[in-house]
Amino acid sequence: MINVEAIRKQFLVYKKYPNLRFFDSAASSLKHKNVVKAMTDYLSYNGTNVHRGVYSLAQEATDLYEKGRTDVARFIGSNLEEVIFTKSTTHALNMLARGLKDLLQKGDEIVLSGLEHHSNLLPWLELATEQGLIVKWITPEDGKITIPNFKKVLSSRTRLVITHHISNVMGYITPIEKMIELSHKVGAYVVLDAAQSIAYKKLNVANLDVDFVAFSGHKMYGPNGVGVLYGKYKLLELIKPAEFGGEMVDKVILPKSTFKAPPYKFESGTPPIAEVIGLSEAIKFIEKVGQKKLYQHALYLRNYCLDKLKNEPFIEIYNQAENSTLLTFNIEGVHPHDTASFLDQYEVAVRAGHHCNQLTMKYLNQDATNRASFSCYNSIEDCNILIDAILETRNFFKNI
Amino acid sequence: MINVEAIRKQFLVYKKYPNLRFFDSAASSLKHKNVVKAMTDYLSYNGTNVHRGVYSLAQEATDLYEKGRTDVARFIGSNLEEVIFTKSTTHALNMLARGLKDLLQKGDEIVLSGLEHHSNLLPWLELATEQGLIVKWITPEDGKITIPNFKKVLSSRTRLVITHHISNVMGYITPIEKMIELSHKVGAYVVLDAAQSIAYKKLNVANLDVDFVAFSGHKMYGPNGVGVLYGKYKLLELIKPAEFGGEMVDKVILPKSTFKAPPYKFESGTPPIAEVIGLSEAIKFIEKVGQKKLYQHALYLRNYCLDKLKNEPFIEIYNQAENSTLLTFNIEGVHPHDTASFLDQYEVAVRAGHHCNQLTMKYLNQDATNRASFSCYNSIEDCNILIDAILETRNFFKNI
Repeated sequence: MINVEAIRKQFLVYKKYPNLRFFDSAASSLKHKNVVKAMTDYLSYNGTNVHRGVYSLAQEATDLYEKGRTDVARFIGSNLEEVIFTKSTTHALNMLARGLKDLLQKGDEIVLSGLEHHSNLLPWLELATEQGLIVKWITPEDGKITIPNFKKVLSSRTRLVITHHISNVMGYITPIEKMIELSHKVGAYVVLDAAQSIAYKKLNVANLDVDFVAFSGHKMYGPNGVGVLYGKYKLLELIKPAEFGGEMVDKVILPKSTFKAPPYKFESGTPPIAEVIGLSEAIKFIEKVGQKKLYQHALYLRNYCLDKLKNEPFIEIYNQAENSTLLTFNIEGVHPHDTASFLDQYEVAVRAGHHCNQLTMKYLNQDATNRASFSCYNSIEDCNILIDAILETRNFFKNI
Repeated sequence: MINVEAIRKQFLVYKKYPNLRFFDSAASSLKHKNVVKAMTDYLSYNGTNVHRGVYSLAQEATDLYEKGRTDVARFIGSNLEEVIFTKSTTHALNMLARGLKDLLQKGDEIVLSGLEHHSNLLPWLELATEQGLIVKWITPEDGKITIPNFKKVLSSRTRLVITHHISNVMGYITPIEKMIELSHKVGAYVVLDAAQSIAYKKLNVANLDVDFVAFSGHKMYGPNGVGVLYGKYKLLELIKPAEFGGEMVDKVILPKSTFKAPPYKFESGTPPIAEVIGLSEAIKFIEKVGQKKLYQHALYLRNYCLDKLKNEPFIEIYNQAENSTLLTFNIEGVHPHDTASFLDQYEVAVRAGHHCNQLTMKYLNQDATNRASFSCYNSIEDCNILIDAILETRNFFKNI
């Protein structure tokens, strides 16, 4: 098990708020102190641009930035030049959707799960409209993506399969290994949104043979402002850069310039330097503790809360299957915003809303829910306070 | 005049490198200590996401982020909802070019200066190719954009005029007031790249009546990873969001969703929160010292160096007119990278390369140059060391 006390010392927010019960890591995790320190060091004692200068400080900045690429490549089992730094998962997926445009033609089919986060849904719907693609939806079963239902929509006309690794509302794990295998059999590429899974599930893109992956720093104890797009090199070579500017161009020739090789052709302008440097430290933290341990800890705490709450009257839990690190719930007749505000009085932080996932809300037949997400800095004490606070809230509103 | 000693105390890099002579602020300025502190505070003691949570920490994060918008709006004289946070100037201009696509038709003319940075050139060339637009080029005169030459290419068919405020190679100021007036007379919109001018020239978008402006945090003593796109509200309403995802969508309806009002329809996904918080502090620093003073100081130092170097043999200076804060030069027969490496031995940091501006290089008939840029933390002593180091370099290579 994780030593929560030791972990908490590595997250400075607990120095200021020792009684914080933070259950919103699925929106943004807290930032590890080494992440902050590395960023502060660069910003304070360097601050220069990368790839552009030959003087020592600029060289140091470039080295630190490119070390970030090395760390990500090791972390996900890719080659260096397959790692593209973006602003966020959303930015990565939008870049990818635009880049793939010319490889897709009217009538081509793409497969989307009916449970996607907006960031892995709307760029593809936009692309589908623009290019006249046909969208095939995987029907969820018990809130999960299943292989039988996937098979129903996969065909020889499928060019792209788009899915999450872990759902941001249900918390369930998509059977991506089998999906990738089946997709490749029909010649389709697979796009994986790993934003929710990156801190929990070891990702080895080479073993998985996945074509594209996106994730963000801020859901893995790292900074906001940085995301990663992984793509197989031969595919990155084929697809078009989605943004144009400095550092991605080779020769400016009118009317059609030539571009650098991947990954640089996808990194136009000044990149998020401090953020990449911070991301390196987040990776080191995750590698040190291990994704398996991080996942098991979160799972244990979530199932502890599920057990205590699932038989309570007026509390509806939408994801009761075992393998989830999320608790997605409502108190009957109480708006989830009111619940979250009430919980805040106990310094309990949970998310309320549609979680940027209106498809799943529709599936659950809810406008909004509460969501508690569990992480390495959460303790059993946190969980007991969460449970008590939820019950207090229910009692207050339901006059129990 | 600026008290350089007092200013240097506000830039922590001088604590570590007291003898640093940093002349590369046009690539990225050093970061003010209050910028770093504000970012560190958020990252250490908050770290939560914005616009998504109702608990106290998330509310604090949202307030800090939205305060950044208030600060930018005050700084540039715009309305709040006209300020869009992006990753960088490059990101802002790419978003804008894509957003404007549907408003332009085959055969429409756009005017571009022949001296643009790649970030304000390539997105427009891409748009021109895609939509069949005709590009009209303003011919520079003595390295400057002039009104007579602008008038030669402006016509009733012009729909967009795209220019920099200050050139990143020549350092000269574009006569934007008159250009905006003339552009509006023919019904064209004006896009202004203010990346190089934002720290030096007070920008009041309302008085200027400019349509779109882009700039970055990292060229104004603030962080990398954040840029601003300003647009007139009625135009932002017309143009299409360029990225799709969470927080920008209103209702997900298949096949065509509805989007939020500006600025949110342009801010998809988790934004650069820490970076916006840092940007606020950069703005405060600039407002405190004043752009006029910042500009005059840089101008004074640059002209001091120009005077000492302009008559030296084997040193070619490409921008000898008075109103520039840049010194763009080569040592005859010495590659600018060699010059920059040599200068580095004296802890003198200058830029070498094409400065992401191959058009201007072509205009100057050079593949690359050195560029020294001057800023508030540079002293006369810095300048003397720069001058001596340049002369030493020349003497070494030319056996003088």
